[in-house]
This record gives sequence, C-alpha cells and structure tokens, in this order.
Amino acid sequence: MSHTTALLLTLFAMYAAAQVGGEIAQRAKLPAVVGEILAGCILGSSVLDWVTVTEPVEVLAEIGALLLLFSVGLEMHVDDLKRVGWVATGVGIAGVVLPFCLGALWAHRAGYGGPKAMFVAAAFVATSAGITARVLQELGVINYTESRVILGAAVIDDILAMLLLGVVTALQSGQGVQIGRLALVLAQAVGFVALIVLVGTRAMRRSSGLLDAPINPLSPLTISLGLCLGLAVAASSIGLAAIIGAFLAGMAVAETTHRHTLEVQLRPIMALLVPFFFVVTGAQVNLRELGSVSALGMLGVVTMLAIAGKLVGCGAAAWSLGWRSALIVGMGMVPRGEVGIIVASLGRRAGVFSDLIYAIVIAMSLLTAVVAPPVLVPLFASRGSGRAPANTAP
Amino acid sequence: MSHTTALLLTLFAMYAAAQVGGEIAQRAKLPAVVGEILAGCILGSSVLDWVTVTEPVEVLAEIGALLLLFSVGLEMHVDDLKRVGWVATGVGIAGVVLPFCLGALWAHRAGYGGPKAMFVAAAFVATSAGITARVLQELGVINYTESRVILGAAVIDDILAMLLLGVVTALQSGQGVQIGRLALVLAQAVGFVALIVLVGTRAMRRSSGLLDAPINPLSPLTISLGLCLGLAVAASSIGLAAIIGAFLAGMAVAETTHRHTLEVQLRPIMALLVPFFFVVTGAQVNLRELGSVSALGMLGVVTMLAIAGKLVGCGAAAWSLGWRSALIVGMGMVPRGEVGIIVASLGRRAGVFSDLIYAIVIAMSLLTAVVAPPVLVPLFASRGSGRAPANTAP
Repeated sequence: MSHTTALLLTLFAMYAAAQVGGEIAQRAKLPAVVGEILAGCILGSSVLDWVTVTEPVEVLAEIGALLLLFSVGLEMHVDDLKRVGWVATGVGIAGVVLPFCLGALWAHRAGYGGPKAMFVAAAFVATSAGITARVLQELGVINYTESRVILGAAVIDDILAMLLLGVVTALQSGQGVQIGRLALVLAQAVGFVALIVLVGTRAMRRSSGLLDAPINPLSPLTISLGLCLGLAVAASSIGLAAIIGAFLAGMAVAETTHRHTLEVQLRPIMALLVPFFFVVTGAQVNLRELGSVSALGMLGVVTMLAIAGKLVGCGAAAWSLGWRSALIVGMGMVPRGEVGIIVASLGRRAGVFSDLIYAIVIAMSLLTAVVAPPVLVPLFASRGSGRAPANTAP
Repeated sequence: MSHTTALLLTLFAMYAAAQVGGEIAQRAKLPAVVGEILAGCILGSSVLDWVTVTEPVEVLAEIGALLLLFSVGLEMHVDDLKRVGWVATGVGIAGVVLPFCLGALWAHRAGYGGPKAMFVAAAFVATSAGITARVLQELGVINYTESRVILGAAVIDDILAMLLLGVVTALQSGQGVQIGRLALVLAQAVGFVALIVLVGTRAMRRSSGLLDAPINPLSPLTISLGLCLGLAVAASSIGLAAIIGAFLAGMAVAETTHRHTLEVQLRPIMALLVPFFFVVTGAQVNLRELGSVSALGMLGVVTMLAIAGKLVGCGAAAWSLGWRSALIVGMGMVPRGEVGIIVASLGRRAGVFSDLIYAIVIAMSLLTAVVAPPVLVPLFASRGSGRAPANTAP
C-alpha cells in the first residue's frame, strides 16, 4: 500500500468511525461527541490499534479544534455577556474557582508541583458550552431561566477557563513561578483578550460591510476564516493557546451582520473537520492505562471532584433562584468537553500529563458529559414550565 | 517560534495570499484560480521563499483537490451525459485525442520514453470543467447551444482524461509497457469507473432516503464526504489517482435527491480547503526555471500546442454547428486547470516531471486559462443571442 493510500485510509477510517460512533451515541441519548471520542478509542491503541496519529492527522485535528472554538465564539454576543446579569456571572466564576481549587488540590496530593498542578487543575474547569447548549436544545428547554443562566455562565466560564489556560500554558513553558513573569503573562493574556473583546468587536461591528467588499460571494466566510487563522497565530505567538485566538475571532465576527450566515456556513465545514479532533483525542488515549484498580479508583475520585466542584460551586451561586433551579444550574454546568480535552491534549504535548493522567482527564470529560443529561431530564420535568421573565428577553 | 506557531503561520499566509490573489485576478477579469496559483508562486521559492510545503500542508492540499473533483462530479448528472448527444461526444473525444497526440509527440521529441511521454501528454488533455463553467456563467451565456456542447464535452473529456490519467499512472509505476499489464490496468480502470457510473449511480438514486436515516441533520453531507474519502482510497489502492474516486463519488451522489443541498454545503468547505491546493501548486513551481530563453521558448511551444490541440480538434468536431460556433466551442475548451495541474503534481511526486517540465505545465495551464476568456467575449458578442433549441432542454 502506498503512503498516500495508507494516509487516505486512516482519514477514511477515522471519519467513518466518527460518524458511526456519533450516531450510536445519539441513539443512546448521549451527545454525539461521546461516540466520536469512543470511536477514536476503539480505532486507537486502546483496542484495535488500526490508526496511527501522524503529524498530518494532528494538524487536521488542530484545525478542527480551531473551527469548533471559532463557532463557540460565534455563538457568543458581547451583549449577551452584558445581559446575563449577576447570577450568571456568579455561577460562572464559582464554577471556575471551586473546580480549579479541587483539581489543584488533587493534583498536588497526586505529586505535581505548582505550575503542573495548575495545568492539571485547568482541565477540571471549563463547562462545555457546546455540549450544554446541545443538551438543552434537545430537551427543548433553551428559553427557561435556568438554561439562560447556564448558557450565560458557560460563556463566562469559558472565557475564564481560556484565560486560565493561557496563564498555565505560559507558566508551564517558563522556569517557575515568578511574580514579574506571572504579571507579564497575565497582562499579555488579559491585554490580548481585552483588545479583541473591546476594540476588535467594535471594529467588526462597524466594518460589517467590508466583509462583503470582495468579488467572491463567500467573502464574509473567507475573511472570517482568515481572521480565525490569523488570531490563532497571534495567540500562539504570545504563548496563549491557538484556540483562544480562534475563539476571540469568533466573538469578534459575531458582532457583524453576517453572524447567522456564518453559523450556517460553518456547519458543513465543521461536519468535515471537527470529528478528526475528537477521534484523534480518543485514539491518543490508552484505556489500558485505566486497567488497574488504582487507576479506576483515581478516575472515580477525579470524576467525583469534577462533578462536585460544579454542582456545589454553581449551585450555591444560583441559590437565589430556589433549590430546584440551583440544582438544575449546577447539574447543567457539569459536562466538560472540548476545552477540558484541549487542555489535556496541550498538557500531553507539553509533557505535563502522563499517559495515565491524560487517560483519566479524557475519561472524566466523557463521564461528566454522559452523567448530566439523564439527571437533567427529570429535574426539568419536575420543575414545570416556567419561562424566563420577559425582562431578560432581548 | 514554536513548531505549532510556525505551521499555523504558514497556513494563515497561504490562505490569506490565496484570498488576495483570487480577488486581484477576479478584478482583472481572470479566473480566481489564476490568482491563487500566482499567490503560491510569490510565497514559494520563485519569489519570497516564505513558506515551506511540508507533509501536513500537502495533505490539506490533497483534501482540497479531492473536494474540488468531488464537486465537479456532483455537477455532472449521468443523464446529462446521455442528453448532450453526438456533437458533445465528438468534441470531447477529439479534444482528448489531438492534444494527447501533440503532447506525446512533443514529449517524445523532448527526450521522454514511452510511458513518461504519455504521462506528460496526459497533462495536455483535460479541459477544466470548473474554469469553463465559471467563465460561461460570468458571460451569462450558459444556456447557449455552444455552452451546452462545451459543458457536455468537458464532462466526457474529464472522464476520458481521468481514465487516461489512471492508465498512465499505473503504467508509469510499472516496469514498462506490456500488453497484458496494459489490458489489466485498463480493465481495472474501466471496471472501477463503469461499476460506479452504472451500478453506483443507480444504487444511490434508489437509496436517497438512506442518507437521511441518521439522526445527524447533516447526514447526507457526512455520508457523501465519507463516500468521497472511501472511493478515493479505493481508487488509490487499485493504482488510479485518488481524485478519480472522489470525482466518481460526486457523480454517484449527484443522483440522489440531496444533490442541490450538497452543492450548497460543499461551497463553504471548498472555500476553506481548495485554496490550499492551488497555493501549494504555485508554491511548488520554481518560476526561475523559466528564466532562460530556451525555457521560455519551450513554454511558448507547449502553450501553442495545447491551444491548437483543443481549437483544431474540438472545432473540427463541432463543425456541423457552423464555423463561428465551432470556433467558440474550440476556444471554450482551451482552458486547462485543476486536472492538468493535478497530473503535473502527480508526475512531480512520481519523479516523471523535472522541475522545468513541472513549471512549464503549470505555466501552460495558467496561460490557457488566461487566454480563453478575453477571446470568448467578442466571439459570443458577434454571434447574436440564439438560444439552445428547445429539444435539448431537459
């Protein structure tokens, strides 16, 4: 078999497996992403060992991750951030702080030093805005007050998680924790994010028309994709994760009049490329690492901490909505997903995460995504159909 | 700069350059593809030497080529092939035979042996269905009789060229021309193509519904892309070019009820990935190879042969339409493009094409694409506005 044939066969196997895995997961009422990652686990060294993750495949996966985070950014209006109010902000912050502390504590007890423990803890932090939104959509409860709080908090949570990711990535690549360096990294990260969020989004809002200027009828898309790649390069070159740039590019582009068209056009692109990210993620996990009682015990502890961190932190911050709503919000924030997995991938590439920790973090992300939906269904059902107050509507 | 940053920067530079190049070309009334290839020339070793074409970038370009040929296949209905009639068939065949003979003659005189001369000649053969269709669309003459003949002939021409490409690729990889081997290669190629065109298209027509069966609302697209990758692997594994598989997958999928939706969904995907193919193509040409009088002379001869082959061959076959229409048809068939460039890329990778021949074939493809549109405009204008006879309408 020639080199080209072998590579194409790998791509075909990954893509086909992702489709089959996603379909099976959805039929089992699970998010498709769970099936795609499991498909990768089966193709990879855990079970069949059919595919090898070479650089070209990794690059496709990276582009998939960029597009995914770009689309998450595209769903987030700067005005949404202003509109969600104090509850969502509190839930978002509490949902980062408590899981981060629990994660760092666990990582420290598991023998990791300062920056490494923070890196591991960063993987505990981010609620998957994508998974959460898809689950709420499937339940038909997207306009409920709790859903708005969850989505608003997921936005804030994602931004904080990415900022945190930028900080820990930069810290990890450095020679230790120095206050000056910490301040510089933080200032760079905050400055970059603030520049795009405040100046970039306004500039994009004013220059919607420029996206239409080229002859190419798809120019709003091609310029946006160029911006996505460009900000990914910019983020990467100041030591932030490339996906932060892609995410911010999405937020900036969301301010233009082309937002809806771009969301529609992104879907087919994502349908081709994003599965590679999840399959590669799965193919790089070696589930055999979890084949001992101690590893499974560790997975149990990590998953319990990850669930408790969100449930307690976010639930407490949403207490003003009543206990049942607080429980819904807490549970709705539990699913980790792309960001946790991206942190794990970065950590693995940087040599911070051992194969065991990597497998545990991926398995934890999978388990949290699997656990939440079945619990949310009866919670929403028992709650009745109270809609969001009219004053929160746009 | 980290490895990831450098790679992302290369991707960004290529993508941005393609957009700028395409825009400038279109403003100069040239096909966008001309600008994209020239952008690659400028980024590559010819001028700036800013980008290096590594394997991940080549794989992106390959996926771009697969998608492009898939979309060309998607535009071709098996029934269109039956409807275009004898004129288009004659034009298509003559437009392959004469340029192939002229190309082989030239390659033989330039010192190439049997299979290599055939490989070089294969790059002379294929009219770019994409470029031609886009030019006719821009002129607003897509429903003229001549346009239908040109498009119909371009279909037949593409199939013959791909079949030929399969044969010369397989021959080239073998140890010489053996009648038994030639028959086997031909039988395999014809069998594969016939299987998909005759059985595959019918099967797809009957099973349109199956594409909708999965839960994923984008399943017609994801299944089609899977089929594209799968047939690319199949074609590649029997020694045909992978793009032939992608092209046939497009023709098969064109028979389903999802054809139009798929065309719309493919556009954004192609907007992201196809430019990489053309930029990589350009970046791999070293225009400095053309920096001598003898090389420029050779380019002149090759381009004249390429134009004459189509103009005379196709014009003669369309003579029954009258001399002006025959001239239009001949000129409309002149633009080479993706297929010629793909042949050149394959030939370069297989070591058949020297850097000089590669540069000449790419430059010839560029020149034919640039020459035709300005000639077609006055020809169509002088011809009046006679529409296609009603009996050729569906």
